[in-house]
Amino acid sequence: MTGEALRISPLGGVGEVGKNSTLVELGEDMIIVDAGVKFPETELHGVDLVVCDYTYVAERIDRLLGIVFTHGHEDHIGGLPYLIMQIDPHDPIPIYGTPLTLGLISVKLKEHGMLGRVIQIAIREGQRARLGPFDVEPVAVNHSIPDAVGLVIRTPAGVLFHTGDFKFDPTPVQGRTTDNERLRQLGDEGVLVLLSDCVRVEQPGWTASEAGVREALEQLIGAAPGRVLVTTFASNIGRLCEVVRSAHKLGRKTGVVGRSMEENLRVARELGFLQIPDGSLVELRELNDLPPDKIVLLSTGSQGEPTSVMSRIARGDHPLVKIQPDDTVIFSASPVPGNEESVARSIDNLFRRGARVIYQMIDPRVHVSGHASREELRHLLDLVRPRYLVPLHGEHRMLWLLRELAVESGIPRENVFLTEIGDVVAFSAEGAQREEPIQSGSVLVDGLTIGEVTNVVLRDRRRLAADGVLFVSVTLDRETGELLSGPDFVSRGFLQVDSEETDGLFEEARERVAAALEGDTARQPDVSYLVGKVRDTLNSLVYERTRRRPMILPLVTEV
Amino acid sequence: MTGEALRISPLGGVGEVGKNSTLVELGEDMIIVDAGVKFPETELHGVDLVVCDYTYVAERIDRLLGIVFTHGHEDHIGGLPYLIMQIDPHDPIPIYGTPLTLGLISVKLKEHGMLGRVIQIAIREGQRARLGPFDVEPVAVNHSIPDAVGLVIRTPAGVLFHTGDFKFDPTPVQGRTTDNERLRQLGDEGVLVLLSDCVRVEQPGWTASEAGVREALEQLIGAAPGRVLVTTFASNIGRLCEVVRSAHKLGRKTGVVGRSMEENLRVARELGFLQIPDGSLVELRELNDLPPDKIVLLSTGSQGEPTSVMSRIARGDHPLVKIQPDDTVIFSASPVPGNEESVARSIDNLFRRGARVIYQMIDPRVHVSGHASREELRHLLDLVRPRYLVPLHGEHRMLWLLRELAVESGIPRENVFLTEIGDVVAFSAEGAQREEPIQSGSVLVDGLTIGEVTNVVLRDRRRLAADGVLFVSVTLDRETGELLSGPDFVSRGFLQVDSEETDGLFEEARERVAAALEGDTARQPDVSYLVGKVRDTLNSLVYERTRRRPMILPLVTEV
Repeated sequence: MTGEALRISPLGGVGEVGKNSTLVELGEDMIIVDAGVKFPETELHGVDLVVCDYTYVAERIDRLLGIVFTHGHEDHIGGLPYLIMQIDPHDPIPIYGTPLTLGLISVKLKEHGMLGRVIQIAIREGQRARLGPFDVEPVAVNHSIPDAVGLVIRTPAGVLFHTGDFKFDPTPVQGRTTDNERLRQLGDEGVLVLLSDCVRVEQPGWTASEAGVREALEQLIGAAPGRVLVTTFASNIGRLCEVVRSAHKLGRKTGVVGRSMEENLRVARELGFLQIPDGSLVELRELNDLPPDKIVLLSTGSQGEPTSVMSRIARGDHPLVKIQPDDTVIFSASPVPGNEESVARSIDNLFRRGARVIYQMIDPRVHVSGHASREELRHLLDLVRPRYLVPLHGEHRMLWLLRELAVESGIPRENVFLTEIGDVVAFSAEGAQREEPIQSGSVLVDGLTIGEVTNVVLRDRRRLAADGVLFVSVTLDRETGELLSGPDFVSRGFLQVDSEETDGLFEEARERVAAALEGDTARQPDVSYLVGKVRDTLNSLVYERTRRRPMILPLVTEV
Repeated sequence: MTGEALRISPLGGVGEVGKNSTLVELGEDMIIVDAGVKFPETELHGVDLVVCDYTYVAERIDRLLGIVFTHGHEDHIGGLPYLIMQIDPHDPIPIYGTPLTLGLISVKLKEHGMLGRVIQIAIREGQRARLGPFDVEPVAVNHSIPDAVGLVIRTPAGVLFHTGDFKFDPTPVQGRTTDNERLRQLGDEGVLVLLSDCVRVEQPGWTASEAGVREALEQLIGAAPGRVLVTTFASNIGRLCEVVRSAHKLGRKTGVVGRSMEENLRVARELGFLQIPDGSLVELRELNDLPPDKIVLLSTGSQGEPTSVMSRIARGDHPLVKIQPDDTVIFSASPVPGNEESVARSIDNLFRRGARVIYQMIDPRVHVSGHASREELRHLLDLVRPRYLVPLHGEHRMLWLLRELAVESGIPRENVFLTEIGDVVAFSAEGAQREEPIQSGSVLVDGLTIGEVTNVVLRDRRRLAADGVLFVSVTLDRETGELLSGPDFVSRGFLQVDSEETDGLFEEARERVAAALEGDTARQPDVSYLVGKVRDTLNSLVYERTRRRPMILPLVTEV
């Protein structure tokens, strides 16, 4: 294929949900769509964030024409500061997004002291932006955050449509639905490649409308005898606005607890996405002066995150908010896979403290997803009628299921490309083919720096977590090899420190190690040999006595 | 209340699902219903099992008349070896159960070399067993294992009914449903206290019948072009039997992979619960001689457990079974809360290797629960019409929801007792009241011994998992306080070992620690003071440079 092919490369967003980012190249020019971050699974011990590896882009930074964002959720914008760190540009990078998206990005860049590292260009549906050979047109889509768009990217090689995150929702509460008509026109115009969200393809039918959630919230808040506490995703700005609006309609005032939520609501309000009378939103301390049935409290913690507001309220250790009789708590969210246990624990604790808790499992109306279900994805395919399809924003099984759906819709199976991160597929009028993968992967962020939590470190953390660690120190005379001190032991996460059993084991270990070294010291063997000998001796003794395998770390010192 | 009251105490099975065990006392006499084990949550690092604390029973062992089991699932029988260890009896303990339940218990006790520690007494529905003042009558119930029963326990203080685990399933495939008629008679007779399973109370309606699963399995296996691999719970003996039976009906032979599954099927078959012609079940190596469309492979791993057969097949590292084109894999199970991520990973990997995977989310017919849903629980309450209710086998929110249901069914709210582990409620004709809780709780089993994985050890493991560990060793001259050797460092799970950055940090740390000790050594302060000083110095340096907080363990040696 010639240099005019359009090359698509997922840097994130396939093979795992989270950290969405797609590289689009045409000849020497490149743009990036979205730069998300992922919150790690539990088994990535101690890792704070997972971002994309942008090495390929960093090495070709002069060719990057800009980054275009579809919407303001963390898994689409949160990686930008780390992208900026990695590409270390001489000139600011142009970033494109709708006003709310740029507003949320600005908050994030400000926290990192990076506002000066970008040039912000606002885009709106119906208008076009030109980035070199890429003509970008945002198309309104409905999602759980206002001002979300899909992107039509017209190039000399053909037209690409990237859905962003979306559902159709025919009765949207924020007044804007996915632009069916524009999608149909796009299909008429001819789409070479469709990149589509598929994270809810396992769900049959259509995703329910936010209108049902609005109705349920109004009914539940209206019927509540006392205070109503609502928790949802801080990022679900549409839902936040609905809660505040419903509360206002029912004569209640809303207090917001949780920094991310307050910040998101502030930005949404400043940009006109939340139109409520002054005084509907009040400070937490003002709430205390109101009767319980005039209060709504909106908080973070819908995922049972241990340090979140709702988890602290559930545990009874929030300094300002304590559960009272007649409190109603609404979990207006569903647990993200992996969070089921912690959410269940929060709900249990709230029940224990006497609250009535309403959550999706017992009242399915209190939350709907922001993503399209199976029949909606079929509808999308029917509207857009692409020649090629690349499923995005899904784990492998979801990419697979969207391909099945596409085949049912008449797209040839070989025209659907299931990708892994870093795969490259080149598209042009002549055809499509896979090219050599580019450098890519996951960069783990822990603490200050990025990229240095390696697999070895993680493997060690997993082992430390399973059986703990036993450190042994031995001091030998450099000249004679005589045992001057030790072996001394320090352990953590193994047996109870200072227990009788531990003391007994260490006493026995001391004798065994001393005996093991006895024969050798005369010959003055090297330190690494002695370290190995100490480790082997302890490994077998400890396993024999406890059936555990703590990590054993000997240190032999010669003085 | 007088000594004749019936005292009920959940030793497990409330506040968390798993390790079901209930203590029933009347005056000086006691029996235990079930002795389960729980598999730990991910955050109990390295803990193998969680069992009940039986201290209260152990201290009154002469009063224990026997242990009665409702069915043969791990969460009801798996704790028996640990109970036996804890109560260390002079005489064997009488245990009561239906034939399959006793068969499965025997396998377990044999593994622990404890067969001689019990006397087994088989019970059957319609027959009664007498344990001192307790007259025990098993009532047939339907569950995901054959030969399950509820227990009517008649006492001078009144009648108790313990449901065990159950659903009604009007069209059972194993030919036995819950005995509606007996339950209604029991209601007529008058039940003082009902102890009821409530783990599925959050689900509306009735739990679907196994008949639907049978139909789905037959259809899917019949339509599969090649081999069919089915994974389910090893404990779901009903389902295992159905898979073998369906395969046989469709002209396929079944091979079973996974020790627990093979063992359970063997016991079920020996006791007549699986009636299939010889030759339907074949050894794994015989399968290789058959064409793919004559093969069904039944395996463990439905929960994505890393070392299970299906997870190894999914990762491509099972020595005997590799995914082939046209393989169909059926997950005939739903993920237990907490296992969602690992199950999803297995499914993804199987799709990647080219299998077609069918799982509950995309075909809800392939699994149904063995527990009663909300309307079934209402039906139970209508049949049994108890005076008092103690919800069992549920997390706190489920106990709470069963109480709501009971109140709707006409039971006064104050007659429903929500309990935590160790709570005691005394019931008699005169009334019911809470008494002093007894010693109880969770005993964590790790490796050979039980009970010694304390909270301190767990907290340390959590910290080790988050940021790793840094050991520092310093050797001083006992006389002069002079630094003879070190500080030397060993770290794991912190920074990449042997990296330039780590070496740089350790170099700097070496200087800082040496400088910190410099001033002190002259004065020969005590070792614990020096340890504190080394730790403080390193803590601040490490946090400053890396923003991480590894556990820092200094060891100061004097020679």
